[in-house]
Amino acid sequence: MTPPAAPAPVHQSRVHQETREVSTSGKGLVDITGMARDVVAASGVGTGVCTVFVQHTSASLVIQENADPAVRRDLEQWMGELAPESRAWEHDDEGPDDMPAHARSAVTRTSETIPIVDGALGLGTWQGLYLWEHRSRGHQRRLVITVIGG
Amino acid sequence: MTPPAAPAPVHQSRVHQETREVSTSGKGLVDITGMARDVVAASGVGTGVCTVFVQHTSASLVIQENADPAVRRDLEQWMGELAPESRAWEHDDEGPDDMPAHARSAVTRTSETIPIVDGALGLGTWQGLYLWEHRSRGHQRRLVITVIGG
Amino acid sequence: MTPPAAPAPVHQSRVHQETREVSTSGKGLVDITGMARDVVAASGVGTGVCTVFVQHTSASLVIQENADPAVRRDLEQWMGELAPESRAWEHDDEGPDDMPAHARSAVTRTSETIPIVDGALGLGTWQGLYLWEHRSRGHQRRLVITVIGG
Repeated sequence: MTPPAAPAPVHQSRVHQETREVSTSGKGLVDITGMARDVVAASGVGTGVCTVFVQHTSASLVIQENADPAVRRDLEQWMGELAPESRAWEHDDEGPDDMPAHARSAVTRTSETIPIVDGALGLGTWQGLYLWEHRSRGHQRRLVITVIGG
Repeated sequence: MTPPAAPAPVHQSRVHQETREVSTSGKGLVDITGMARDVVAASGVGTGVCTVFVQHTSASLVIQENADPAVRRDLEQWMGELAPESRAWEHDDEGPDDMPAHARSAVTRTSETIPIVDGALGLGTWQGLYLWEHRSRGHQRRLVITVIGG
Repeated sequence: MTPPAAPAPVHQSRVHQETREVSTSGKGLVDITGMARDVVAASGVGTGVCTVFVQHTSASLVIQENADPAVRRDLEQWMGELAPESRAWEHDDEGPDDMPAHARSAVTRTSETIPIVDGALGLGTWQGLYLWEHRSRGHQRRLVITVIGG
């Protein structure tokens, strides 16, 4: 007797979530692509999305070019001009880099959602995922990485 | 006789969606964290993500510091300098705040995706979710909140 | 004898993913709303989310007003002022529009997540989804569109 066919598993989605910490050493972009790749691999998900979320308002996320480091230096300098420490910010409890950090976070991302294609992060060839530290001193930053897919 | 074990339900994901309205009273940030928390609680999802989407192009979303209100005042003023009403915008059908509202929306978010951890919104201690009204007059704004997880 | 009731299928979620290419003709916004609508329709998902991801760091995504084309011209011009080609960028391997393209991408989106409501993209009346080309010359841009829902 033929057993009843199992439902096709491909399209059923499931959830996998991990919390990770990243140490920064002051303003600038920290490559966290490998960390996201590891969580996707651990999830066993073949097709879906990976959402990376940073639990802070003075650090943020961007997906940027992973080749020439000058891109990250230019971004850091340009952002420093868009939200300068020299501006007369009302909120400056933690120093001149406090409110610029919030402003820089407001125009970048608190979360990035990246597709999972064939069991791996579906980034383009030149794309890397970066945690952008906006404070002058280094911090311990916490990320929640959630993978959903089948 | 022992019944066959049920498949572990933890990793299967499901969807819950609600539409909500928010009244604003002109430019500035409105805290909608509680609204998102309520929808997550109603969903019964333990692990997953909550996507909040605003169905307008002159209001947007940001996750920002929830402690000192001066942060929101600084953000509002700084954004007014980045996209000033005094600039010679071509599109001004609805007044001088019309096109700046679109520009401000373009550099903030139309959606925010927040992890769900242990059945609750996985925000950091100092994070709040805000609807940012970019028009001078108050508006009724519509949000679609979608929870996916298991 | 009554067979055991099947579990309610409404809330079970599944995944559908497609890769698409878009041709651009230099700086400016290209409407890709129809493309996303087609993928959502093909997915058969009734309630969920659609995540559109662009696999480049010199083109990005925004959701903007779909009525007056002057909105897109103003956005293009304003963004050109925020990240001007005339600035002394360190990274200029591919010409004066190279680094401004990365800066413009950093403050807009690499992905947009849009709710699916009643089997269709849950955009507001005046919202359109746009691929924003930030390079002076036209490019072939690759998108990954992932639909998750039930």
